[in-house]
Amino acid sequence: MADSFSPFRRVRVTRFGRRAGAPPEDLAATEEPLEVRLHGKSFAVIMRTPGADRELTAGFLLSEGVIDSHDDLGAVEHCRHPDYPDVHNIVDVYLVGDATKRLEEHLEQRRNIMTSSSCGLCGRVTIESLRCRAAPLPLDNRIDARLAGELPQKLRARQSVFDETGGLHAAGLFALDGTCCASAEDVGRHNAVDKVVGAMIFDERVPLRQYALAVSGRASFEIIQKAWLAGIPIVCAVSAPSSLAIELADEAGITLLGFVRDGGFNLYTHPDRIDGV
Amino acid sequence: MADSFSPFRRVRVTRFGRRAGAPPEDLAATEEPLEVRLHGKSFAVIMRTPGADRELTAGFLLSEGVIDSHDDLGAVEHCRHPDYPDVHNIVDVYLVGDATKRLEEHLEQRRNIMTSSSCGLCGRVTIESLRCRAAPLPLDNRIDARLAGELPQKLRARQSVFDETGGLHAAGLFALDGTCCASAEDVGRHNAVDKVVGAMIFDERVPLRQYALAVSGRASFEIIQKAWLAGIPIVCAVSAPSSLAIELADEAGITLLGFVRDGGFNLYTHPDRIDGV
Repeated sequence: MADSFSPFRRVRVTRFGRRAGAPPEDLAATEEPLEVRLHGKSFAVIMRTPGADRELTAGFLLSEGVIDSHDDLGAVEHCRHPDYPDVHNIVDVYLVGDATKRLEEHLEQRRNIMTSSSCGLCGRVTIESLRCRAAPLPLDNRIDARLAGELPQKLRARQSVFDETGGLHAAGLFALDGTCCASAEDVGRHNAVDKVVGAMIFDERVPLRQYALAVSGRASFEIIQKAWLAGIPIVCAVSAPSSLAIELADEAGITLLGFVRDGGFNLYTHPDRIDGV
Repeated sequence: MADSFSPFRRVRVTRFGRRAGAPPEDLAATEEPLEVRLHGKSFAVIMRTPGADRELTAGFLLSEGVIDSHDDLGAVEHCRHPDYPDVHNIVDVYLVGDATKRLEEHLEQRRNIMTSSSCGLCGRVTIESLRCRAAPLPLDNRIDARLAGELPQKLRARQSVFDETGGLHAAGLFALDGTCCASAEDVGRHNAVDKVVGAMIFDERVPLRQYALAVSGRASFEIIQKAWLAGIPIVCAVSAPSSLAIELADEAGITLLGFVRDGGFNLYTHPDRIDGV
């Protein structure tokens, strides 16, 4: 099972047309379930690419509202039970302090969300529910337009597994001078964001007010939600944002850039953070 | 709120670099939550692009194992309660016959899955749990290699909202002579598949043994899972499959094609269904 730890696996292929003469072997991005356990109880199962599992877990728990910062985390470790054969797919989390008390509240809230939405559900209600958890981000940090336009390209240069498999999303956190501080790849777009945020949680650098997030694909509601809860004021997506991503970014005080390609981009919200437009 | 029904919305943009002189308005793919209610109780909330909500719901319930066919569906309708302002984001479902009895079992099972995975979790276990629900598909239908290679291109030609927004995934169901029988677009990759499968559920054509599924992006575990449960023997993805997608396709008896572009493709599993390779 050592193979499970690798972000890609060797697979057999038959080729037709293009590259028909290439070898009958290829690499595929690994996808495996990760179980997140809180105080010994299963909390969630995430389909993910192995690697940075602890970071993925921390970032995921932040965006789920279970933790607010590194201070809430006691232990975050792969399960070490000798009887379990696939312990590399289980991460055990123990919270400390207030977070432990909040956990029960959180689980209760989760149950309620699923049963109390009878007032009607829309993007507005979804955004309102987030506003209880986070305040709009202040407009105090800025980035140069040319620099912002280059972030996805810089991220792409770090996508080693994509190069091998063509099958992974990526996310990167950049300081506002363009330095890359964390990057991750995953079969799941949201997971890549959780992984880079999680890395910064362990570095005790959250909230990430001094950083811009770059993502390899589209910007959906969930990507912006994760950025907001991590305090990231600038999000650059290679592809299109959805309508709700734009609405949420507007509400959150997040500067949202889409179609960031070839040095150009579309700016959807809070343009004041971009110098030189 | 009539705007919510549209698959895209008008948004304001500031452009930098490329197309800097283009108008300051653009279209973004609509993303809104859809609540699926079973017998009046909230079952799931799906972030989706409005349109084909009933089909999305039916396809989703099939892949969740709540229904097996059209026979299990009593009513699938948008909520019509006069007091609810956002009823276009709620679909009410009533099951009939055995499906009603199975629902309670299903909910119980769902709770158990989250608490009983202490034997360790891996791709193999995940696949095993599906094997209880579906048998491998028989190798009785075939498609011409050249025709298979053209399906994504044919699907692309039907992506009207993508043309406007650049922000949507697509799925299409094709008869084995290449005729397109259903296509759908959505901000969510899985939703697009649920929508086309759902359309065929209402047409009482499931299981879809005589069809090939084309998807605009990657093939993940979930895409193959949905194909299997709908009985679709051939899946063509424009991008890369994940390792678990390949393993599951192998187990399910599904012929999986990846990187289907420019008339060429990689064939990962069950090549016997493809003529002329």
